[in-house]
Amino acid sequence: MRSDRLGETLLPKKLALPVFASDALSSVAYAPDEILITLGAAGGSFAALHSWQITLGVVFVMAVVVASYRQNVHAYPSGGGDYEVATVNLGPKAGLTVGSALLVDYTLTVAVSVSSGVQNATAALPIIQGHQVVIAVALVILLTAMNLRGVRESGKVFAVPVYGFIFGIAMLAIVGFIRKSVGDLPLSASGHYTLAPQDHLSDLGQLAMIFLLLRAFSSGCAALTGVEAISNGVPAFKKPKSKNAATTLLLMGSIAVVMMVSIITLAAWTKIHMQDPDAPGRLLLNGHPVPGYQEDTVLGQLAHAVFAGFTPGVVYVSIVTGVILVLAANTAFNGFPVLASILARDGFLPRQLHTRGDRLAYSNGILFLAGAAIFLIIMYDAQTTRLIQLYIVGVFVSFTTSQTGMIRHWNRLLGKGDVSLSERRRMHRSRAINAVGAVMAGVVLVVVLLTKFTHGAGYAVGAMVVLFVMMMAIQRHYDHVKEELEVLDDGEEQLLPSRVHAIVLVSKIHKPTMRALAYARATRPSVLEALTVDVDPDETKVLQSEWERRDIPITLKVVASPYREITRPVLRYVKSVRRDSPRDVVMVYIPEYVVGKWYEQLLHNQSALRLKSRLLFTPGVMVASVPWQLRSSQGQEQRFDGPAPGSVRRGRR
Amino acid sequence: MRSDRLGETLLPKKLALPVFASDALSSVAYAPDEILITLGAAGGSFAALHSWQITLGVVFVMAVVVASYRQNVHAYPSGGGDYEVATVNLGPKAGLTVGSALLVDYTLTVAVSVSSGVQNATAALPIIQGHQVVIAVALVILLTAMNLRGVRESGKVFAVPVYGFIFGIAMLAIVGFIRKSVGDLPLSASGHYTLAPQDHLSDLGQLAMIFLLLRAFSSGCAALTGVEAISNGVPAFKKPKSKNAATTLLLMGSIAVVMMVSIITLAAWTKIHMQDPDAPGRLLLNGHPVPGYQEDTVLGQLAHAVFAGFTPGVVYVSIVTGVILVLAANTAFNGFPVLASILARDGFLPRQLHTRGDRLAYSNGILFLAGAAIFLIIMYDAQTTRLIQLYIVGVFVSFTTSQTGMIRHWNRLLGKGDVSLSERRRMHRSRAINAVGAVMAGVVLVVVLLTKFTHGAGYAVGAMVVLFVMMMAIQRHYDHVKEELEVLDDGEEQLLPSRVHAIVLVSKIHKPTMRALAYARATRPSVLEALTVDVDPDETKVLQSEWERRDIPITLKVVASPYREITRPVLRYVKSVRRDSPRDVVMVYIPEYVVGKWYEQLLHNQSALRLKSRLLFTPGVMVASVPWQLRSSQGQEQRFDGPAPGSVRRGRR
Repeated sequence: MRSDRLGETLLPKKLALPVFASDALSSVAYAPDEILITLGAAGGSFAALHSWQITLGVVFVMAVVVASYRQNVHAYPSGGGDYEVATVNLGPKAGLTVGSALLVDYTLTVAVSVSSGVQNATAALPIIQGHQVVIAVALVILLTAMNLRGVRESGKVFAVPVYGFIFGIAMLAIVGFIRKSVGDLPLSASGHYTLAPQDHLSDLGQLAMIFLLLRAFSSGCAALTGVEAISNGVPAFKKPKSKNAATTLLLMGSIAVVMMVSIITLAAWTKIHMQDPDAPGRLLLNGHPVPGYQEDTVLGQLAHAVFAGFTPGVVYVSIVTGVILVLAANTAFNGFPVLASILARDGFLPRQLHTRGDRLAYSNGILFLAGAAIFLIIMYDAQTTRLIQLYIVGVFVSFTTSQTGMIRHWNRLLGKGDVSLSERRRMHRSRAINAVGAVMAGVVLVVVLLTKFTHGAGYAVGAMVVLFVMMMAIQRHYDHVKEELEVLDDGEEQLLPSRVHAIVLVSKIHKPTMRALAYARATRPSVLEALTVDVDPDETKVLQSEWERRDIPITLKVVASPYREITRPVLRYVKSVRRDSPRDVVMVYIPEYVVGKWYEQLLHNQSALRLKSRLLFTPGVMVASVPWQLRSSQGQEQRFDGPAPGSVRRGRR
Repeated sequence: MRSDRLGETLLPKKLALPVFASDALSSVAYAPDEILITLGAAGGSFAALHSWQITLGVVFVMAVVVASYRQNVHAYPSGGGDYEVATVNLGPKAGLTVGSALLVDYTLTVAVSVSSGVQNATAALPIIQGHQVVIAVALVILLTAMNLRGVRESGKVFAVPVYGFIFGIAMLAIVGFIRKSVGDLPLSASGHYTLAPQDHLSDLGQLAMIFLLLRAFSSGCAALTGVEAISNGVPAFKKPKSKNAATTLLLMGSIAVVMMVSIITLAAWTKIHMQDPDAPGRLLLNGHPVPGYQEDTVLGQLAHAVFAGFTPGVVYVSIVTGVILVLAANTAFNGFPVLASILARDGFLPRQLHTRGDRLAYSNGILFLAGAAIFLIIMYDAQTTRLIQLYIVGVFVSFTTSQTGMIRHWNRLLGKGDVSLSERRRMHRSRAINAVGAVMAGVVLVVVLLTKFTHGAGYAVGAMVVLFVMMMAIQRHYDHVKEELEVLDDGEEQLLPSRVHAIVLVSKIHKPTMRALAYARATRPSVLEALTVDVDPDETKVLQSEWERRDIPITLKVVASPYREITRPVLRYVKSVRRDSPRDVVMVYIPEYVVGKWYEQLLHNQSALRLKSRLLFTPGVMVASVPWQLRSSQGQEQRFDGPAPGSVRRGRR
């Protein structure tokens, strides 16, 4: 598949939805839990009373965000995403802020999704209990290995689990609603108990209550992560791209809202109580803690209650939930290197990350992402609740900046004269929507920071600042280098060296040496000599006599090595040549072996490599590697090939 | 200091003793502990009864080993050491066995010495209690950093702590003996209690008792580690080298024996009881365990008892003991890379480890050693007693093999006709001594394996086997390569390519590109062209117009890149050139930047590096790096320089 045949691989809406929605939809597997856990700190009845209000708030934010991003999708059919919108409209620093936020967020997506996936699977497989960290880390390693090998994403691979998940939650809701309406819905596992408030929250003041509600709202907004994914992927849609993308976005938002509301409703009906794993022992039966109570996720408890007596239903919901969460984590594995590549293009990250189609460049990003996610999983014990405290900050930094950028975008367009009245009206409307979106996102961001900064969000902000500063430094470095390398028009650089002095390094007489000598001779340099370092006098004597015996028509120079080392004597000799004829350029030929396996590589060429890195510091010197391909190297160059991740969502395979 | 002025740096006996003795002498800081702990398993009275017998056994072995190695020193004034003796007399596999054993042993020397050093320091600094692992790991890291930077050993640096240690133990013994003789020697901290036997050893059968005694003897033989060091270092001695080395060896053995006997005697007088940290709670007062009892080392308890009321004495002994143990660990940091270099010379390890005076080559060895030692310290909780179970196996494998080799050595010399009668008599005597040494070492090795295999020695044996197999595989690889590279006398390799086709890779016009073009033109190739990959059509257009504007007299070829990548299009082009004229050699010039810092290097040349590693797989291609030195690179080539460790003990500084 080549880039000029991209059209054939574009996504129809029914495939685009699963490709882009796994992240957003999977959030309903943990957002309700977080709302109930946070509210539950003030007791089970408090949670039951307010979970509905919080959910309505989240749904409202979701609606605003979806409406806002529909404007982005129309305005930036190039699939710019938040980074581009911020950079173009608010300048590179705003773009870099979004970039830092998103990099942190991808890491957290992996950690949160995998942790939640493992927790959800526990409902069907209680054997996992107690081994969550190990299993979560193993899953991340598995995803890493798959992405390093270069698994191609395809719409079809996404379709089965995503539609399977939607189907599962739909069945859960429908069966639950029917059973409720016929009065046959059983209580959840935790519904038989009462949930006591945490000690310091048992007598809640007005201010503390508002604070707790805001915190629950912050946690619930985890449902919004991944909503922006479609705005990055417009080019992957079938035509009319923007319209299809906007429709898919609306569809995705609607499904997420329906799921969220259904789950919270069912949770209230089945009286699900969730306690914070860090403040356990508050689930009481007749005033006494329930011994050995293992807390399942909200979806897990719901499935057990709604499908009571029908185990396949429980297992099905657990499995599709686990799978869609792992799929959401995989999204980050695709998005992270793509974002890194864009940041690299703009000089904020090492430039080699930019080169597309180069799997090795992506490997570093994947490994970095995996390492950071594993670190988070271990640090936070694979507890979704703890990880959620760090999450969302990045998302809302990105939302806020991007929506603010969109206001600027419309202002700029409106400032131009040549816009028809109907278009102006449309732009005014879009600007209004984006303005509401920006304000809303900003408010949520402030709420998140206020209520969660000391609970972990501070670390996320810290990580963003570190990334921001680092990327600024990298860009500064590239700018300095560019300046230093600029060709002035004084013609100085065009001066030709007068002659070429060629030196072939020889350690013993074997095929690579002979090839290097032959190739060096073919270049017909002004001076050609062979050079050997006298590390071991016996070996040197053998070399010299062999040289004479073979009648090699090139002078063999021997340089002494009082310290029995190689690099310095060669360097000293090369420098003396340069000193004697400064207008010559010195070409050092180094015979190298090419072997098949990387570990074989460790056994060869190390002295050559070191010598080379030293020679490069000497002005006026070129270093030529003359390779000799050993038999084991044949066919091994393919080990560098492989597909790059994240292609399908950028409209390329 | 150059190798032709080595004479000036040779060691007189009074400096040679501290340089070579730190390892051997420091063993008396843990060998008595191990004897008492092992015997103590059968109760305090059993230990008191038998510790003397065990010590006599150890002293006897020490005497035999010292006598044996005095023969080695005379026979191999080259400082061959056990590896050379085994290889020369018993063949490369025996040598490799010794090599594997010593590599394992160096690692254990670091782990045991540092752990014991920290434990000994605890007697003076109780604050260390509970943090031993962290401190031990920190010490290993410190030693690693020092050795990576290339701290030079010098006789004087060794003299102060080693003589300080000898002085400290001597004062301890003298004061102890005087106080005993005037009936004023107090009991040790543990002397006030009784030590109960471990449950399963309370009623000891004949066989179990013998087994326990043999285990204690095995542990006590830890006192012999490091005795062989002098035999590796004969060339570092002043003339007459062999005689001086033999005298120093005897002196060292005598000091070690006197120390060992003094410490065990004082321990018996002060009634020191040692309990295994893995079987605690057996120290009883009136039949009840002593609560909160912290066990000091034997030297620590002795110092507290003998110098009771004179704190500086206690602190002095603790400090010199800690320091000499760290010095002993440093010995391994010097010995390990030297041994690795010898093994590399013989093709058993990557060849680059051989190059002397090349600090980078040594760094890998140092890092490997440090990593393995830290792993052991963490695994075994910095508990000397646990680590000792793995120790000694390597030492005695090496002793046994080397002494057996010496018998062969004398047999060979005696087989020659031209030996005078007095010399024959001397040789017969030496052979008898070495034979006794070989048998004795072999017996100890069997005892060690029998009594400790399941306690940890098995892991050490396993590690040796793994190293042995790996090193055999490396040698086989080198042999295969050598065979493949051999120049046949059919003249095929001398064929000259007919012409040179030069390709300069260009991404944009800057100084490195201009230099690469100028240098390439200076080589006057048959064909010269510039090549750029069309990754971004806009950038390519800019490049082309700039090329025309500057009137660069070289054709600029543009190759398409459908996947927006660099490597494959270049490769395809180069291959097509080769196909069109197979007798030409292709020279690809790659402009590279040279920056000052390694992390700057990460920001540049990565695509070039990758392209190069691919090009080397293509036959008939040379790759020439044309460096451009950025300002930040100036003066930075020194970062590769520095002294190599282990010089002083090989007679070189």
